[in-house]
Amino acid sequence: MTTLKLVPTSVSLVEKAMVRVRDYIRDNDLKVGATLPGEGHFAAELGVSRAVMREAFGALAALHQIDVANGRRAKVAAIDGSVMASSIDHAVATSQVSVADVWDVRRALELRTVALAAQNCTPDQAAAILAAAEGMAAAAHDISLLSRADIELHRAIASASGNPLFLQIVRSFEGLLEVAVPRAWDTRETEQQRRDMLARHLEIAQAVASHDVGGAIAAMDAHFDASIGDLIRNGDAA
Amino acid sequence: MTTLKLVPTSVSLVEKAMVRVRDYIRDNDLKVGATLPGEGHFAAELGVSRAVMREAFGALAALHQIDVANGRRAKVAAIDGSVMASSIDHAVATSQVSVADVWDVRRALELRTVALAAQNCTPDQAAAILAAAEGMAAAAHDISLLSRADIELHRAIASASGNPLFLQIVRSFEGLLEVAVPRAWDTRETEQQRRDMLARHLEIAQAVASHDVGGAIAAMDAHFDASIGDLIRNGDAA
Repeated sequence: MTTLKLVPTSVSLVEKAMVRVRDYIRDNDLKVGATLPGEGHFAAELGVSRAVMREAFGALAALHQIDVANGRRAKVAAIDGSVMASSIDHAVATSQVSVADVWDVRRALELRTVALAAQNCTPDQAAAILAAAEGMAAAAHDISLLSRADIELHRAIASASGNPLFLQIVRSFEGLLEVAVPRAWDTRETEQQRRDMLARHLEIAQAVASHDVGGAIAAMDAHFDASIGDLIRNGDAA
Repeated sequence: MTTLKLVPTSVSLVEKAMVRVRDYIRDNDLKVGATLPGEGHFAAELGVSRAVMREAFGALAALHQIDVANGRRAKVAAIDGSVMASSIDHAVATSQVSVADVWDVRRALELRTVALAAQNCTPDQAAAILAAAEGMAAAAHDISLLSRADIELHRAIASASGNPLFLQIVRSFEGLLEVAVPRAWDTRETEQQRRDMLARHLEIAQAVASHDVGGAIAAMDAHFDASIGDLIRNGDAA
């Protein structure tokens, strides 16, 4: 390994370059998939080096605001939950936020997504929600299949809310769910506990599908009461 | 400008490098402020170039998971709302999400933060919340001062919730609020409209300070009904 110290590019120049690209997107009213000018265009316009622009494009790509594929022009990117997911995973990994804190935020959001889904869901969306709840029951003791159907149910409800920001935030919890959900199912020791949890999920799905807003909220609330109870029993809530 | 094409570093190598740094933080149970090994350490360990590691560090810094200051070792970073803020601002700027969508998410979150704040706030937190509401009234017709106090009130409530994830998500809306709040106040044409809005904020603050959970939720809900009504009238809700 070399001892050569790479001179760090000034953070403020990179930030200025990032702001310029964001302003370009906004001022030109660009939508998802629209092509951006190359790094060279912005570098010349701002009077900064290609290296600075390259770092700015890299940071914007890390934030999923632009897509950069090798050899092609950068495009405006669609939001996806992965940026928030990455923040939340980091906060939990470094003990800045507990799993119980995350679950309380999820509850606040999902009490609303379930109400909106019960109000707004189309027949196709209702069918997908019911299918996910039935998939959980059909998975029986295959915890991995069951967990996937559980995550899919919450995602289908958020999707049926009709508000894409709810969907993205709910999806940003999926990384944690992939760890926590199988663990929670593993610790539901008795058949009765498992049957109760499956029944609660089916109840949520049926209330949404039949446009029963109050019932959907009550069933989701009962579900979170039980899950947060599980978390606390498992010592994840610290 | 040169026509030299910089060869893009493989995205998958950079992603692999990012995962390695995240795993290092997790496996060593590092907390905010802890110092990371240099880029050279990870480059040697992974058998990748310094350029790849430098890009990975840059992406992690863009995601506010590490802090890189010129000439110093990278440190584990504290979460702040700016990453989610940047995602939300991008989604709104590119019409993927409407301002009304954002306000509905805020409402879901802030109905819970206000309930938690009413349950949990310390005397100092209650004083800060009341001071912000009184600051709004004292600002009279200085819209900029009034808007700052309005944003401060919502932040103080989220802070008093005791759940740092709520605080960071609520803070991530502040960029939009800095635009939307002065605009909403500008369009409250009559003295009566302004007085009503100030009274609703004071009502929220007083309910929180007196630990009246139900009253705090009801007052916050009335506030959002009114603000979302303003948005729709101003045509921001499209």
